[in-house]
Amino acid sequence: MRNTAVLLISCPDQKGLVAAIADFLYRHNANILHADQHQDAAQGLFLTRVEWDLADFDLAPSAFQSAFQPVADRFQMNWQLKLSAQRPKMAIFVSRYDHCLADLLYRYQNGELHCEIPLILSNHMDTKWLADTYKIPFQHIPVVKEAKAEAEKDQLALLRHHHIDFIVLARYMQVLSPEFIQHYPNRIINIHHSFLPAFHGAKPYHRAFDRGVKLIGATSHYVTEVLDDGPIIEQDVARISHRDHLDDLIQKGADLEKIVLSRAVKWHIDNRVLVYANKTVVFD
Amino acid sequence: MRNTAVLLISCPDQKGLVAAIADFLYRHNANILHADQHQDAAQGLFLTRVEWDLADFDLAPSAFQSAFQPVADRFQMNWQLKLSAQRPKMAIFVSRYDHCLADLLYRYQNGELHCEIPLILSNHMDTKWLADTYKIPFQHIPVVKEAKAEAEKDQLALLRHHHIDFIVLARYMQVLSPEFIQHYPNRIINIHHSFLPAFHGAKPYHRAFDRGVKLIGATSHYVTEVLDDGPIIEQDVARISHRDHLDDLIQKGADLEKIVLSRAVKWHIDNRVLVYANKTVVFD
Amino acid sequence: MRNTAVLLISCPDQKGLVAAIADFLYRHNANILHADQHQDAAQGLFLTRVEWDLADFDLAPSAFQSAFQPVADRFQMNWQLKLSAQRPKMAIFVSRYDHCLADLLYRYQNGELHCEIPLILSNHMDTKWLADTYKIPFQHIPVVKEAKAEAEKDQLALLRHHHIDFIVLARYMQVLSPEFIQHYPNRIINIHHSFLPAFHGAKPYHRAFDRGVKLIGATSHYVTEVLDDGPIIEQDVARISHRDHLDDLIQKGADLEKIVLSRAVKWHIDNRVLVYANKTVVFD
Amino acid sequence: MRNTAVLLISCPDQKGLVAAIADFLYRHNANILHADQHQDAAQGLFLTRVEWDLADFDLAPSAFQSAFQPVADRFQMNWQLKLSAQRPKMAIFVSRYDHCLADLLYRYQNGELHCEIPLILSNHMDTKWLADTYKIPFQHIPVVKEAKAEAEKDQLALLRHHHIDFIVLARYMQVLSPEFIQHYPNRIINIHHSFLPAFHGAKPYHRAFDRGVKLIGATSHYVTEVLDDGPIIEQDVARISHRDHLDDLIQKGADLEKIVLSRAVKWHIDNRVLVYANKTVVFD
Repeated sequence: MRNTAVLLISCPDQKGLVAAIADFLYRHNANILHADQHQDAAQGLFLTRVEWDLADFDLAPSAFQSAFQPVADRFQMNWQLKLSAQRPKMAIFVSRYDHCLADLLYRYQNGELHCEIPLILSNHMDTKWLADTYKIPFQHIPVVKEAKAEAEKDQLALLRHHHIDFIVLARYMQVLSPEFIQHYPNRIINIHHSFLPAFHGAKPYHRAFDRGVKLIGATSHYVTEVLDDGPIIEQDVARISHRDHLDDLIQKGADLEKIVLSRAVKWHIDNRVLVYANKTVVFD
Repeated sequence: MRNTAVLLISCPDQKGLVAAIADFLYRHNANILHADQHQDAAQGLFLTRVEWDLADFDLAPSAFQSAFQPVADRFQMNWQLKLSAQRPKMAIFVSRYDHCLADLLYRYQNGELHCEIPLILSNHMDTKWLADTYKIPFQHIPVVKEAKAEAEKDQLALLRHHHIDFIVLARYMQVLSPEFIQHYPNRIINIHHSFLPAFHGAKPYHRAFDRGVKLIGATSHYVTEVLDDGPIIEQDVARISHRDHLDDLIQKGADLEKIVLSRAVKWHIDNRVLVYANKTVVFD
Repeated sequence: MRNTAVLLISCPDQKGLVAAIADFLYRHNANILHADQHQDAAQGLFLTRVEWDLADFDLAPSAFQSAFQPVADRFQMNWQLKLSAQRPKMAIFVSRYDHCLADLLYRYQNGELHCEIPLILSNHMDTKWLADTYKIPFQHIPVVKEAKAEAEKDQLALLRHHHIDFIVLARYMQVLSPEFIQHYPNRIINIHHSFLPAFHGAKPYHRAFDRGVKLIGATSHYVTEVLDDGPIIEQDVARISHRDHLDDLIQKGADLEKIVLSRAVKWHIDNRVLVYANKTVVFD
Repeated sequence: MRNTAVLLISCPDQKGLVAAIADFLYRHNANILHADQHQDAAQGLFLTRVEWDLADFDLAPSAFQSAFQPVADRFQMNWQLKLSAQRPKMAIFVSRYDHCLADLLYRYQNGELHCEIPLILSNHMDTKWLADTYKIPFQHIPVVKEAKAEAEKDQLALLRHHHIDFIVLARYMQVLSPEFIQHYPNRIINIHHSFLPAFHGAKPYHRAFDRGVKLIGATSHYVTEVLDDGPIIEQDVARISHRDHLDDLIQKGADLEKIVLSRAVKWHIDNRVLVYANKTVVFD
């Protein structure tokens, strides 16, 4: 794999922006591999993702900030630099359903997810065998209603200890508190087993079955304080018919959940997702 | 086209049902072309659709009822007989958007829809040119808020006059009153421009855009007294991205609406749809 | 899970067939759960799948043949009876790519595949860890060009020893000889990594990339003597764009392969697939 | 609609390219609305599409070439400038099947296609009613095998007379000669009723039916001298089952053809398609 850098920028849209960024990179001998941008006219916003090969680049990562900040200041840029050499640390939260966890771990060991997984955290012991198979540390923190705050405190301590960058809720069946969420803004990825905003909340397959829909869906999104309302990263659907029982919906849905969640996680890891106005831009 | 009959049956599930129906048809020398059935275990319901060639069938349509009723009584069947030779009469209601109307009329003249269209009814004049092109009678009945009841009275009179069997709302922008609807139970097909139950009600594309969904949808359903809540006949979705403006959603959605509505209308005409428990069985 | 029987029948289409089958089952007190049928007018063929609950059925499996054979003879039926209690024995052949194997094994242990897996057979050692994880016997039989016949002899001996009912080629990279194939007619399921008949043969992703297609596909089919030409059980596609490199095609394709193969295997196990005229009927 | 310019560029990939283009546009006060680019590493090629608002742009279209040519020369650019105010002139060739023609004309009058249609050309009279409905000039040029060259001569004369920019073959059932094609390189768009490269050539639905595929497809591509082998612009598929007869394939396929062709035509008109290495880049 190439050694690359990714620059993610959002700022007010204005003339000269693209020229300034391109010129800066050119002056430092960057070999641009991908560049994508998006203008949101209604919001007056400019968003871009640029990826370049570090081979010929004449700025050390440590020197980037001081060199780039004048450009950033001129255009009031919100920017982040990400290096492919620095794999983000992902924690996976899971309860009893293990299909998403199994899928993520398989993709991880297969080299598809360019991250580290220092921690699997569960309120049950059911999925420990999977963690063991893939040799990932597994922590069991039971969550009981009356002591949720304490459980979250323990979880946060573990996350900090492992320097976790982002969290994936792989069918984690507990609602996180606003206090917990604000520690990882736009850095907690959930998979909801419906085509949001349809069937937000509990038991979406049951409700989809009762409503008689002809397609079921899955949605991965960043977690915000409002349940199932965060910025959507990816969605997909599968066709069902009257021949499908509730069990079939759940089984077909599981395949959707795996695909949709793994795409979102991969894009997040590859720094392809920018959030604004409770929406995402996915630079694919 | 073959001269066929379709028998649609729903009744409590019980042993001997299939044998009784098959035996009845066999005794009258029916050449069965299609037979499909569905059991809903939760509801204890049996639903079936049988289609046979009338060529060798030894019962005249007029004699069918008296011959079949004993079988029907034995199993408490709810049944209908439909003959391919009797094309149902469809009325189309439309407002200003004409894409669904244009699509239906093209399919009609192309021979894809085995129905008659004695009437297009609109609260605007905008689509008259399409009616004229395809030589379908067009009636303009303006609808103003204060005189909706009167407008519906005029509509109902026209529908009765033309012996209309079912109504298609091809992006008709008026909400029909419960009184109107009860004249055509499960015989009014609407197209809603969202993936129901998401974004029911007004301006679904605007709300889909604001929510940042990654797929848009369209839903055709039978109209019931609760808005956008009737039995779903067909749904489909199309992928969008952050690159799509609201205008793009509307344009991509229009293609979805055409496809989804025309499928539902075709299935209804071909007697493939059975309704129960606010759901549909579509025998395809 | 319910204790059920499935009857699969194909025979010349003729009047009285459905009545005869339904009547036979009714007389023996079968509670029919699903019944589906298909007529192929061009071939003059009738195919059906009937599944019933064995709870009240008054024929023991051992007595079924002698009771049913007169009906079968009368209509020249080709028929098979399958019992849900008798799980078929599946062998998996695999080479180095392990994504399909991993997916099948996960589904197996998850209870999604109602079969036994007495044997994984590979020409490489790479996937042994997966077999070990799921505690499935793993046999390594190297295949070298000059000694292929011998390798197949060893494979056949193992298959016989384990009373294997059908074989799944989970990205097995060796072409099987016609002699081998004729031992398992319509009982070897392959996954080909293209939308057949496009790109049959070697390196389909490379050729899809070179051709500049906008969708890639995967196809599961029964293996016949002509390479990649057997009856297709299932196909699906995924959208790609110019942004996708060959590596992306391979990765996106892997997800397709898993889904398409697992559907085909599941349908085969559930006795939903009937073959005729080098095509399949899938009773879903 | 905004008054915009689109610059399409392809050239050898090299550092400084993006900076040079962005800088040029910035210096002339362009307000960039969209910019997309693609690098093909294997071919060492850079391709880009930039669209900007002409409102504040300080170069008149007539002055653009002399101002931009130095930049183009420096990077050996192959470039084209397109103005939204100059609608391209499209000719439609059609035979007897009229679904694609009807669809294109409806979209044209609906404002979805930003082009002019000075000419519909057919070897049959069947579709004249559609041309009349939408008030488009219709020319009937019969094509007989022995006098194909003459027919093409007449066609070319008409195309030249109407200053046609590109041609759409809307299910035109004649193969064009290499001589004809070379007058419109990458400017003839065909719709083929299969998922190419599967079933290229004649009667693809018949062959798809015989092969027992589970999905049917449609492909729009630029016409080159090798039949059905030109650069693919768009493809899509629809699911079928054993229940579908050949007629159903043709009917479901017609819907695919309309959608796939109209997308390709729209992208071509909006200058979103670049061709290289017998592939297309579609900047969406």
